[in-house]
Amino acid sequence: MESILAPVLKEALSLKGPIDLKTMIAQIVQMGDEGHNRNKAGTSLFIRDIAPPYVVMTEFSNEDKADVLKFMNSNDHFFLNLSMPACKSALDPAANIEYSTIVTTMARNGTEFGIRISGLGDKWFTAPAEVIDGLFFPGFTLEDANPDIGDSVITETSGIGGFAMATAPAIVQFVGGTPQDAIHYTTSMYEITEEENGTYKMPTMNFRGTPPTGIDLRKVIETQILPIINTGIAHKDPGVGQVGAGLVRPPMKCFEDALESFVEAMESKGVLKKIN
Amino acid sequence: MESILAPVLKEALSLKGPIDLKTMIAQIVQMGDEGHNRNKAGTSLFIRDIAPPYVVMTEFSNEDKADVLKFMNSNDHFFLNLSMPACKSALDPAANIEYSTIVTTMARNGTEFGIRISGLGDKWFTAPAEVIDGLFFPGFTLEDANPDIGDSVITETSGIGGFAMATAPAIVQFVGGTPQDAIHYTTSMYEITEEENGTYKMPTMNFRGTPPTGIDLRKVIETQILPIINTGIAHKDPGVGQVGAGLVRPPMKCFEDALESFVEAMESKGVLKKIN
Repeated sequence: MESILAPVLKEALSLKGPIDLKTMIAQIVQMGDEGHNRNKAGTSLFIRDIAPPYVVMTEFSNEDKADVLKFMNSNDHFFLNLSMPACKSALDPAANIEYSTIVTTMARNGTEFGIRISGLGDKWFTAPAEVIDGLFFPGFTLEDANPDIGDSVITETSGIGGFAMATAPAIVQFVGGTPQDAIHYTTSMYEITEEENGTYKMPTMNFRGTPPTGIDLRKVIETQILPIINTGIAHKDPGVGQVGAGLVRPPMKCFEDALESFVEAMESKGVLKKIN
Repeated sequence: MESILAPVLKEALSLKGPIDLKTMIAQIVQMGDEGHNRNKAGTSLFIRDIAPPYVVMTEFSNEDKADVLKFMNSNDHFFLNLSMPACKSALDPAANIEYSTIVTTMARNGTEFGIRISGLGDKWFTAPAEVIDGLFFPGFTLEDANPDIGDSVITETSGIGGFAMATAPAIVQFVGGTPQDAIHYTTSMYEITEEENGTYKMPTMNFRGTPPTGIDLRKVIETQILPIINTGIAHKDPGVGQVGAGLVRPPMKCFEDALESFVEAMESKGVLKKIN
């Protein structure tokens, strides 16, 4: 990655100029991807976009160019490396807005799940990470699984991934369940989010926009509906890598603690009156 | 095409070896393509498959390789050049089977629509081609449209294209209608076909197989349901090219004449007794 992939892609990208990931994600959600656990269309579109003529026209050897294209082609999840930073870039400007109860970060480190709320700055609200309910690759079982881990849940935080599962019905073959479950998950996410996405339209939902932008902490508490996350299952030992995929939700405690903290902050600002 | 595209692809293909189009079509019908009028996923998968490392490793100049990849990348319908011969290859072995009422060819030449029936050999049953109901590219209207033309309807004959429209709901933005119409079209095609496809599974239909393999002439007459076709609209003047896209059906007369001819053939063989 360091000696071939990165330099080749860097030169190809400098030949090509910026890639509009928002437009690309708008396309992949019409091609059965949800951008977290299914990225087959995104990986294909990215290779189509960067290979001709940019990778081909770099100064590298044919062998290096072929290695780069083969590497990207060998893993349908490659586009996750682009969808994650795209989602992160969409959410960061929503951080640190006074009085806002929008969830601007969700992330997990394999031990704890943490969230951050726009109006509460950089404070993390954490609780023990859940175990993922899913399908395991041949030879692996629940015994091998680490609890929920990684920062890929930024995709759900920005409203794709599990939130857009209705548009990616084929993913149920990877994470379990039925296409009807996928529609149900997406539909329920509208209950806890603020707006419908004006760009990411889902054909299977009659071109309705994906559920957020913006999980509202208050709606999670009110409805008791937790965000749904499509995710990979990592082996508990380092270096083994992914052993399955499935569905998981954050611990409710993160949201409960965040709401308490939000109320205290509002009380200290005099916006809410303390009731004892 | 003659001096660059074909030679580069020929050498790339000789480096790569055969491409399994059946497997590729099975994937694209899970990625929002129906293989006739929407081929965005197929075009992407083909470029992914042939570019790394095969196009890159040919003896051609970087400029030629880049031109080939750019050309394929510039048209989301490129895969139609592969889906059509794949469908033709699937149907030809079904031709010339005694007593079979399966439709083995549908095609149009811009003036007439023609069908051939397995048990009736190479005989064509033709009637005037219909005008396509669809959406026109900016600057064009129904006045510019030629009647239904081309051999791409081989895709519907083998059970994808309009028959698999349920799995490609985004296509309604190109041909008109709603995703619910797309599901309705696919569902009705089960009424006139013989078997469900065991390989091409549609996630939006709970992984049900695409309607045929095999339109049954008798079922078309019995139900009075005509095959539904997603297709391009060509300009009536040569050289202008595509001016729109939409839906069309064959003339019922083709099927009526074919059934009469089939009955006569069975009578002359003594399989059916003539009633006067």
